Amino acid sequence: MSRVAILGAGVMGSALSVPLTRNGHDVRLVGTHLDRQIIDSIKNRGAHPGLDAPLPEAVKAFQLEEAGEAFAGADFVLSGVNSFGVRWAGEQLAQLLPDHALVIAIAKGLAAEEDGELRILPEVLTDAWSEPKRARHPVAAITGPSIAGEVAAARDTCVVFAGRDQAVLDRLAATFRTDTYRVWTSTDLIGCEVCAALKNCYALGVGLAEGVLEAQVGSESPDRMHNYEAALFAQGAAEMRRIVSLLGGDPETVGWLPGVGDMYVTSTGGRNVRVGRLLGTGLHFAEASAKLGDPTLEGAAAITEIGGAIPKLAHRDLMRVEDFPLLRHLYDVIERDQPVAMPWSAFFGGEPDVSLARRDVA
Amino acid sequence: MSRVAILGAGVMGSALSVPLTRNGHDVRLVGTHLDRQIIDSIKNRGAHPGLDAPLPEAVKAFQLEEAGEAFAGADFVLSGVNSFGVRWAGEQLAQLLPDHALVIAIAKGLAAEEDGELRILPEVLTDAWSEPKRARHPVAAITGPSIAGEVAAARDTCVVFAGRDQAVLDRLAATFRTDTYRVWTSTDLIGCEVCAALKNCYALGVGLAEGVLEAQVGSESPDRMHNYEAALFAQGAAEMRRIVSLLGGDPETVGWLPGVGDMYVTSTGGRNVRVGRLLGTGLHFAEASAKLGDPTLEGAAAITEIGGAIPKLAHRDLMRVEDFPLLRHLYDVIERDQPVAMPWSAFFGGEPDVSLARRDVA
Repeated sequence: MSRVAILGAGVMGSALSVPLTRNGHDVRLVGTHLDRQIIDSIKNRGAHPGLDAPLPEAVKAFQLEEAGEAFAGADFVLSGVNSFGVRWAGEQLAQLLPDHALVIAIAKGLAAEEDGELRILPEVLTDAWSEPKRARHPVAAITGPSIAGEVAAARDTCVVFAGRDQAVLDRLAATFRTDTYRVWTSTDLIGCEVCAALKNCYALGVGLAEGVLEAQVGSESPDRMHNYEAALFAQGAAEMRRIVSLLGGDPETVGWLPGVGDMYVTSTGGRNVRVGRLLGTGLHFAEASAKLGDPTLEGAAAITEIGGAIPKLAHRDLMRVEDFPLLRHLYDVIERDQPVAMPWSAFFGGEPDVSLARRDVA
Repeated sequence: MSRVAILGAGVMGSALSVPLTRNGHDVRLVGTHLDRQIIDSIKNRGAHPGLDAPLPEAVKAFQLEEAGEAFAGADFVLSGVNSFGVRWAGEQLAQLLPDHALVIAIAKGLAAEEDGELRILPEVLTDAWSEPKRARHPVAAITGPSIAGEVAAARDTCVVFAGRDQAVLDRLAATFRTDTYRVWTSTDLIGCEVCAALKNCYALGVGLAEGVLEAQVGSESPDRMHNYEAALFAQGAAEMRRIVSLLGGDPETVGWLPGVGDMYVTSTGGRNVRVGRLLGTGLHFAEASAKLGDPTLEGAAAITEIGGAIPKLAHRDLMRVEDFPLLRHLYDVIERDQPVAMPWSAFFGGEPDVSLARRDVA
């Protein structure tokens, strides 16, 4: 039995207490300053307001000011905050992390520097750490398709723990793995993290389809535009493969759970898809986001961050803007309030020119 | 303007008359012996019973006995029959094909020989042709995500015309391509065709998830098992990549429209998914198929054909059975009436062993 401290009581951080307690670990769930009511609810009723089933009784909940007690003697630390809280979490962990704890994180995104350089979040998490602390705690990441509510309900889930040290990954995997929460490992940390960020972008794109159809037929329709969705899914997979390569990851990572698997699950529902639908009907991003109650939208944030970095990287001859027509269009829609006008002909390396084709074989 | 003869008045063969007539071609739609009522309906009311919108008035419909008239002088021939009718269509075309016509086909599947050899359907289509006829008419294929009803409604659709001769593909693409029916080309005919067959198998697999959940909770549920579906989608993509390579195709073909794009569209709805759901609830294949009115199920047929071939190919040292745990399990469920018991631990090269991992780093 190990002691596991979770920082962040959002749905995913909290859901992961289910496989952990099932394995008999001593699980301490610490809320951020935003999670005060969630922690109260768990302390008082054993229930997380965002999850259907009660949390296991063995889970101990802590408010942020009790974090020191929660983290004391922890063997494993899960950073359960999303991409917006990574820097904050890093600062907290700089103080809280026990000397021998292994760290794994769930945030999905990439952080762009001024010059367009894109950094993976497990690195951003350690920005506030001393060099020895960084060396002692190589941060791993949970990637692959997992909806929190299904993890909490112990429904079959297959994920990938990614990191640079195989022995660390093996220990983490053995700690979390159950007969329904199944864990593979990958040392392609960059590839897995880039996929995790990008799948949110492209899932938001897939969501446009329903909105575009609504705008065409003038009302909500029982119909779908599956062909449109699938073409965006495929173009997303192709762009993902290219970015992963350019950023130093393994393009093969796109082909399984961290890439197309996670993009599949994110494209079939969730907030990114819902905001995409509203954008497809013609709303500007600010209106669409407000209509959904201004939720945290990791997909939109990643589009802004990565879409804004691409021209800078292209300017430095590190990328070609024309290789990412879908991501760039999503950027134009979200950041520049452009109407949706899918650049189909630019997809998949460019649709062959009709007149040219006719002339060639005349 | 060209003359285009379509053999087979199913929904896809008929839907393709929409982009073709939009391009001003003279389109002749010929029903098979199974399509008599469809052709009557088009002749009398201009409507295909399986499509929502009427067909363009310019489409000329023919019963099979009028095929000679329809095919006379055709520049292009579309084989619109599904995988079950390919041999029959090949025999018809052996008689009907004008000397200079280019041929493209839509059937999705693979045909297994006695020794397990798997053949793509554009080759099977030409079995009844003379050698000179085969040389004159290299058969191309339409692959990628396209639901017929959406093609008929001129909704945005991105497909890939696959074949061995780029000049032929360019002429075919220029004939079909419109501003909503967008055509890319690929000379990886094997890869595209193997993907087209396999995506039906894995989409049926994805469908299991809903049924398994129903069986667990005892009724239809508004919930989904997205994590389960996504893991199957990812394992399907991984197995697809391996089979494409083994059969001589380009594994990169899996990464865009013909592979993950088409698998996405097929996994989000349709008959293969529906029969998968029923199998997931515990029905045997014969019961599930009967419950759906015994439709033609290309996915189930492909599972039987390919799943049955794998051990034969493994016996000849051309494959390893353990590389295809999902396809093999689908075969056991459909062909051997085995209950669904997903072999998760065999996925993705095998889940690392827990006890081993613990010992390694102890």
